Amino acid sequence: MKQPLEGIKVLDFSRVLAGPYCTMLLADMGAEVIKIERPETGDDTRHFGPFQNGESGYFMFLNRGKKSVELNLKEASDRESLMALIKEADVIVENFRPGVMKGLGLDYETLKEVNEGLVYCSISGFGQYGPYSKRPAYDIVAQAMGGIASITGYPDNPPTRSGASLGDMSAALYAAYGVMVALFHRERTGIGQEIDVAMVDSIFALLEHNVMRYTSEGVTPERVGNRHPISAPFDVYESKEGHVVIATANESLFARLCKVMDKEELLEDARFVTDIERGKNESELKVIIEEWLSQYTAEEAVNLINEAGVPSSTILNIAEISESDHVKEREMLLEIEHPIAGKTRIPGNPVKLSKTPIQVKSPSPALGEHNDMIKQKFKAK
Amino acid sequence: MKQPLEGIKVLDFSRVLAGPYCTMLLADMGAEVIKIERPETGDDTRHFGPFQNGESGYFMFLNRGKKSVELNLKEASDRESLMALIKEADVIVENFRPGVMKGLGLDYETLKEVNEGLVYCSISGFGQYGPYSKRPAYDIVAQAMGGIASITGYPDNPPTRSGASLGDMSAALYAAYGVMVALFHRERTGIGQEIDVAMVDSIFALLEHNVMRYTSEGVTPERVGNRHPISAPFDVYESKEGHVVIATANESLFARLCKVMDKEELLEDARFVTDIERGKNESELKVIIEEWLSQYTAEEAVNLINEAGVPSSTILNIAEISESDHVKEREMLLEIEHPIAGKTRIPGNPVKLSKTPIQVKSPSPALGEHNDMIKQKFKAK
Repeated sequence: MKQPLEGIKVLDFSRVLAGPYCTMLLADMGAEVIKIERPETGDDTRHFGPFQNGESGYFMFLNRGKKSVELNLKEASDRESLMALIKEADVIVENFRPGVMKGLGLDYETLKEVNEGLVYCSISGFGQYGPYSKRPAYDIVAQAMGGIASITGYPDNPPTRSGASLGDMSAALYAAYGVMVALFHRERTGIGQEIDVAMVDSIFALLEHNVMRYTSEGVTPERVGNRHPISAPFDVYESKEGHVVIATANESLFARLCKVMDKEELLEDARFVTDIERGKNESELKVIIEEWLSQYTAEEAVNLINEAGVPSSTILNIAEISESDHVKEREMLLEIEHPIAGKTRIPGNPVKLSKTPIQVKSPSPALGEHNDMIKQKFKAK
Repeated sequence: MKQPLEGIKVLDFSRVLAGPYCTMLLADMGAEVIKIERPETGDDTRHFGPFQNGESGYFMFLNRGKKSVELNLKEASDRESLMALIKEADVIVENFRPGVMKGLGLDYETLKEVNEGLVYCSISGFGQYGPYSKRPAYDIVAQAMGGIASITGYPDNPPTRSGASLGDMSAALYAAYGVMVALFHRERTGIGQEIDVAMVDSIFALLEHNVMRYTSEGVTPERVGNRHPISAPFDVYESKEGHVVIATANESLFARLCKVMDKEELLEDARFVTDIERGKNESELKVIIEEWLSQYTAEEAVNLINEAGVPSSTILNIAEISESDHVKEREMLLEIEHPIAGKTRIPGNPVKLSKTPIQVKSPSPALGEHNDMIKQKFKAK
């Protein structure tokens, strides 16, 4: 069966992370993604670690299944090839600082004149308009300004960045959904349009009920470590060996937990009768739970607690989750063969489509690997 | 202009966060989302704080623009209405524990017999298959198992959950992109299919280059607080008053920073000549930067550093970002009028489409608000 986006051409002017992850999500579904790269150096991430046989793992992961064409956006003959590509494109994705594409004569207003149906997606730190539009941004800036750092970590530490680049990754996800919505609309109406996604907006949108605590009740949420702001027990606990996550947010889960701990007397204890009371007395409850946990390793405890139907887990590091049966069975690491790096494993796609599963048709391209193909094509015309 | 998803009918069996956020993303774009709720109690989040005039802010945010129908999935007459709805649906979204929909006779295999073109999206903690498929999950479990907690926070603290429910939110985003890909494919081929998205997979997919550090170089990334694993200066610094984020990851940004600090001699200092050297000597560099910062408030410093073209920001709490000019101009808080709560502000959508902007056509529905409409419709047949 054909892939869902077969026949969709994406011209990808983006670099580093947010843009390339967005176009990777389109390539996984069958789109032809042509990466326009600066001659000789290419995407910055070609030079970012980690490396395998000198090839960037960063680049290999994000650019699987794409084509690479070197074009100097300021040179006349290259621009001719580029305009020919643009006429045939369905989607453009770019993540320059706002104004750069306009400076190159490649903004939406200009390009829609040569390709009316174009879906043109820009990803930036602060958006194409707004008070900080022209500011430079890195992920840490988006996490700091978007509010998520202020609620992540422990009260006695500074606000904390997530170890993953959530500003880039969430913007990429919102952009992929936006591009698909715009393509669907175009399929039905023939109408193209422009999409503007900002990293700071994307982080703010991820905050979910934390924003409502402020707008509904005037509360400014603070850092609470791993605790739940209201419910208990809901935290990371120490076992005989290793950390255990236990998450109960209602009466029936707490009853199950008490049963498995053989401490059903807690259900009658005035300090713990409701979720709200347990939240207030959570440090006393923690002592009781950790006393019970001290008999078990983390894994033993997690199995017991899960069997009782209560959400619980160990905490896996990157090596452990990467080597887990879960990741293996869910195909969340894909083995690819790269001509220089050799066999490598790259993160899979969490969207499991039953009839049109993702396909990685090729490893990440060498810089300019598809120059000839594209240039010949336009010379032939 | 019509909205992109006008005419698309979504039957929403989902509760709490991941499913409802996915269908909210579809409703924002014009889909008709009919929320199937348990009679009398409805979605759990109707009873979750924060509250405004007794209405749940949690529920109001996630369920704007949707319809609510109470149906008892086990009662014969209700099931008749339900099957009529299913025949007309384009999309189903559910986030029960795997097996529950099958137990109700509402799994994809059964429903495709009455509606061949259906796009059927399931969101769960661990997926519809896999070694932990049947386990219960809360967001904190997905963050702990998916690997992100292990790289978030400071080395001397335990692994740290993000303050936002990233497991739910990322699964919702992957699901929204997946549903749109499947709808696009159906529009071209008439073929429906099933989509399976797991929270743990979604968290793992967000880890980006951290996974490649392991698979390419065998390194298990650890917690580094706000520091960058390699580059410096890239951290949170203390000013005279407040924290300042400064992010430089290449030579030219570092040169700009030295210039604005009037410390260009650092460019010649052997400890700081390359990004790699700066990474090794980052604590010494931090002393120098904080000495300079001690003359300025955070806001003053951020303005100076940004004018020099270096990414920098203050760290905003939820109140500050919510009241910022940025959020106002980018319409990232939408004011809605709810019949019981009154005026409230809910998070907007980061996808800014130029021709078909999102529309929130109604506040979140009262439980069963659309019972009559739906039931009459089917009685009339």
